[in-house]
Amino acid sequence: MRITIIGSGNVATHLSAAFKNAGHRIVQVYSRNMHNAALLAYHVGAEAVDNPKDITGDTDLFILAIKDDAIAAFVPYLSTFNKLIVHTSGAVELQQLLNFTNNAGVFYPLQTFSKTKEVNFRDVPLCIEGADEAITKTLEGLARDISNNVYRVNSTQRKVLHLAAVFACNFTNYLYSIGEQLLAGSGMSFDMLRPLIAETADKIKEHRPADVQPGPAVRNDDLTMQAHLQMLNGQPALQEIYTLLSQDIIKNHNTGHGDK
Amino acid sequence: MRITIIGSGNVATHLSAAFKNAGHRIVQVYSRNMHNAALLAYHVGAEAVDNPKDITGDTDLFILAIKDDAIAAFVPYLSTFNKLIVHTSGAVELQQLLNFTNNAGVFYPLQTFSKTKEVNFRDVPLCIEGADEAITKTLEGLARDISNNVYRVNSTQRKVLHLAAVFACNFTNYLYSIGEQLLAGSGMSFDMLRPLIAETADKIKEHRPADVQPGPAVRNDDLTMQAHLQMLNGQPALQEIYTLLSQDIIKNHNTGHGDK
Repeated sequence: MRITIIGSGNVATHLSAAFKNAGHRIVQVYSRNMHNAALLAYHVGAEAVDNPKDITGDTDLFILAIKDDAIAAFVPYLSTFNKLIVHTSGAVELQQLLNFTNNAGVFYPLQTFSKTKEVNFRDVPLCIEGADEAITKTLEGLARDISNNVYRVNSTQRKVLHLAAVFACNFTNYLYSIGEQLLAGSGMSFDMLRPLIAETADKIKEHRPADVQPGPAVRNDDLTMQAHLQMLNGQPALQEIYTLLSQDIIKNHNTGHGDK
Repeated sequence: MRITIIGSGNVATHLSAAFKNAGHRIVQVYSRNMHNAALLAYHVGAEAVDNPKDITGDTDLFILAIKDDAIAAFVPYLSTFNKLIVHTSGAVELQQLLNFTNNAGVFYPLQTFSKTKEVNFRDVPLCIEGADEAITKTLEGLARDISNNVYRVNSTQRKVLHLAAVFACNFTNYLYSIGEQLLAGSGMSFDMLRPLIAETADKIKEHRPADVQPGPAVRNDDLTMQAHLQMLNGQPALQEIYTLLSQDIIKNHNTGHGDK
């Protein structure tokens, strides 16, 4: 398939590399920033463009890998070619593309990408939605070329996925940084926490998280929780986070609500 | 070294296996529950006892791997032998042992253990504290026999470590289970989130978490955050957790406070 990539960020970079490795052809890479467009285009053997008017219709698929709020404004540059257009966002409804064209879909990789870190794309869950069954099938086939984890996900479900990812990934990373701050405040290195963080994530590869919940809250160990809150004196935000999460753990694990 | 293990839970199990593999000798395993004592004792070639009065002084080290609130009550059974006694708790001060004996220390493995999951003990951070320098050196040597990550940590620091672990491990696991709940509510499997969770943990092996913080809060993307809160209507606890963590991310990343 001939593929045009709109964007040059982390998703654009990892996605176009995966497609190229699977034997597809990246024809153009667009970015507002010519340097970024050229860098990615060079890696995947494509033409770099920084003016939307230089984008050609000699392609089979446009992949929008740009910021959520830039998507709607960009579609009119592409919809005239009447080729398949997909976006890669967890939070944007398919409808935003359907306002301009029926030849549309979503190709959402549920993963966090960094430019400097390799990701095995075969493990990345790809969430597919098409405007009709034929488009969905095309996108599914394309997704299977680069990943073993392909799911049909509608716009409502995709938003829930994105929200769940905020809790399980973004907030989790923030808890890591709270851990780092606390250690630094007592002259200790974050290295001491790294093996525990790795093991905590590793455990849920085989278990449901609710089945392996550790800590004072799940034991309803009030003495330890009081001592922890005492240690957080002067850090009201951390006290609040500690209290709120502990209370919710106690509630859910003592009523068996949801997960035990 | 001859070692007596008090307790038969996860810490007792992994610790005694590591010591045995390193060539030390486990002489006795005590548990209130004879079945548990016998099971662990069998694995490490020790004698099982379920009555504290059957514990002998023919040992070099007593390791208390029992619940925090059971530690103080157990020490009198052991202190008469005048052998080195250590506990393995993150939250208990060395002083609790010093009330009974000066031949005391702490041997705290900063890791989450499950009975059914192997852990490479050489990666486990071992946090050592001794009543004096000679004891500290003895415990350090012992710790190095089974781990590459040995730290001297005093009682105040150890409490901070334990608190940091609650944030970075216990609360993190709870966020995983919130993710699972959200997906289940829309008919999706937790499997879809597992690769993202693995990658989020993997990233901070090489980076500081504050340097790789993803998500709408760090971008101050108010539209997405409002949409997420809307989706959590009817789940006030989750709304509160979402708001509190997002606000704290915004505050810390926009002022550069602490970590950017």
